[in-house]
Amino acid sequence: MPILNKDMTLCISLSGRPSNIGTRFHNYLYEELGLNFIYKAFSTDDLAGAIAGVRALGIRGCSVSMPFKEDVMALVDTIEPSAAAIDSVNTIVNTDGHLSASNTDFEAIATLIGRHELDPSANVLVRGSGGMAKAVVAAFRDAGFENLTVLARNIAAGGALAQKYGYAFIDADPEPGHQVLVNVTPLGMDGEQAAIQSFSDAQIAAAETVFDVVAFPSETPLVAAAREHGKQVITGAEVIALQAAAQFEKYTGHGLSEDQVIRASEFSRQ
Amino acid sequence: MPILNKDMTLCISLSGRPSNIGTRFHNYLYEELGLNFIYKAFSTDDLAGAIAGVRALGIRGCSVSMPFKEDVMALVDTIEPSAAAIDSVNTIVNTDGHLSASNTDFEAIATLIGRHELDPSANVLVRGSGGMAKAVVAAFRDAGFENLTVLARNIAAGGALAQKYGYAFIDADPEPGHQVLVNVTPLGMDGEQAAIQSFSDAQIAAAETVFDVVAFPSETPLVAAAREHGKQVITGAEVIALQAAAQFEKYTGHGLSEDQVIRASEFSRQ
Repeated sequence: MPILNKDMTLCISLSGRPSNIGTRFHNYLYEELGLNFIYKAFSTDDLAGAIAGVRALGIRGCSVSMPFKEDVMALVDTIEPSAAAIDSVNTIVNTDGHLSASNTDFEAIATLIGRHELDPSANVLVRGSGGMAKAVVAAFRDAGFENLTVLARNIAAGGALAQKYGYAFIDADPEPGHQVLVNVTPLGMDGEQAAIQSFSDAQIAAAETVFDVVAFPSETPLVAAAREHGKQVITGAEVIALQAAAQFEKYTGHGLSEDQVIRASEFSRQ
Repeated sequence: MPILNKDMTLCISLSGRPSNIGTRFHNYLYEELGLNFIYKAFSTDDLAGAIAGVRALGIRGCSVSMPFKEDVMALVDTIEPSAAAIDSVNTIVNTDGHLSASNTDFEAIATLIGRHELDPSANVLVRGSGGMAKAVVAAFRDAGFENLTVLARNIAAGGALAQKYGYAFIDADPEPGHQVLVNVTPLGMDGEQAAIQSFSDAQIAAAETVFDVVAFPSETPLVAAAREHGKQVITGAEVIALQAAAQFEKYTGHGLSEDQVIRASEFSRQ
């Protein structure tokens, strides 16, 4: 670590239950790149006061997690299109007291849809109804996809999500036949549901592309099965790498290589 | 340095022109003591927003320097006697959102008057009229000194200071004869006035005790001359050691040895 000094630029996160991941991720890369920055996670019971502090103390960047992603919109100066698309902020950049809010999850998914050249005429099945599912559905809509179905056990949330973006909703697994399968649930994630494959082998066999937003582990049961079937695969590791790099670059002006993001992500989860 | 983590307790300073001294002093000792704390200097053009941020982000300690020492009093919850004595705050401690403001400069001077057993019947001459002079004059008054004269070239400030605490004011050096001489000006301080001895040899010869609040260098021309005359000497190094240790203990709960304060002070000024 560099010797701490008065000129360090502070970036923070605000969330209901801070994890250590962001703090370790950003500080690891500040050190590697020799940036005079420092990053620390915070929680708060006074979001307006916290954002007042961001402005008054010249805190450069503020990552935003649940439960503040929506409420914070009323407290910033500019809502960028990526945040407006899903009414959700995960990144605030403070430029001389002007706060600009964006959503790098949305940006990352939109980038991956383009980078992997997904066909807008494809029939897409999205499993999930949470905040990240919203980012996924909105990104597909923005990319011009017309045939998309939201699949969720939560009928209220799933139905609202589908309706908001003009898509169909179902609450039970459909027959195989969708060309793009997207998992945005915790199925397959490290923890209690790690062994669960979020789409069936038959659904995978009928598809062309499988996209698992779960990032940990990078090889979920869904990803492993899709690779076995020889399908095009997009992983949560790609999402997290892109969104983290975008956030890092917004705060510091420095881009990150994929290798840097991977190493910092691994360090951040130790 | 420990690996930076989400649970670090943040302490900050607020001043118009932050120096690196506090940041280096506190972080040096956090490292030495293995405390999971971090300290950084800030400036602000929105003091109320900054204090809102201190509350909302759970910033544990906030050192306050010019020009915020008086204005900040309206923004805290408790004014401790040391701050009330001179209407000036240099330390804010945040305990679960309750902000308590004190003045460790005043506390340090009051402690030194007692520790060195200065006689309340002595005739005291205080040179200076700034914020620290106020702390000195108030501490002598609280210690029961009745004969004190404020000496300052700034007639408005010096006159007001003397009047506030019920003492005499003069704007030119008096005849020798004061038993306690206190310098609270930059005379003798590292910089343009380093070579200036703030009281004459004749004044020193007639005195019993010489107290120089200038801390850098620890041996000012005044201190050197007083030692040559065999007088009791109180130095600015003692003031800064006491006030810094008091501030550190208020923030962290950990006391500091004089040796620790000296080493951290030396590191902080490198």
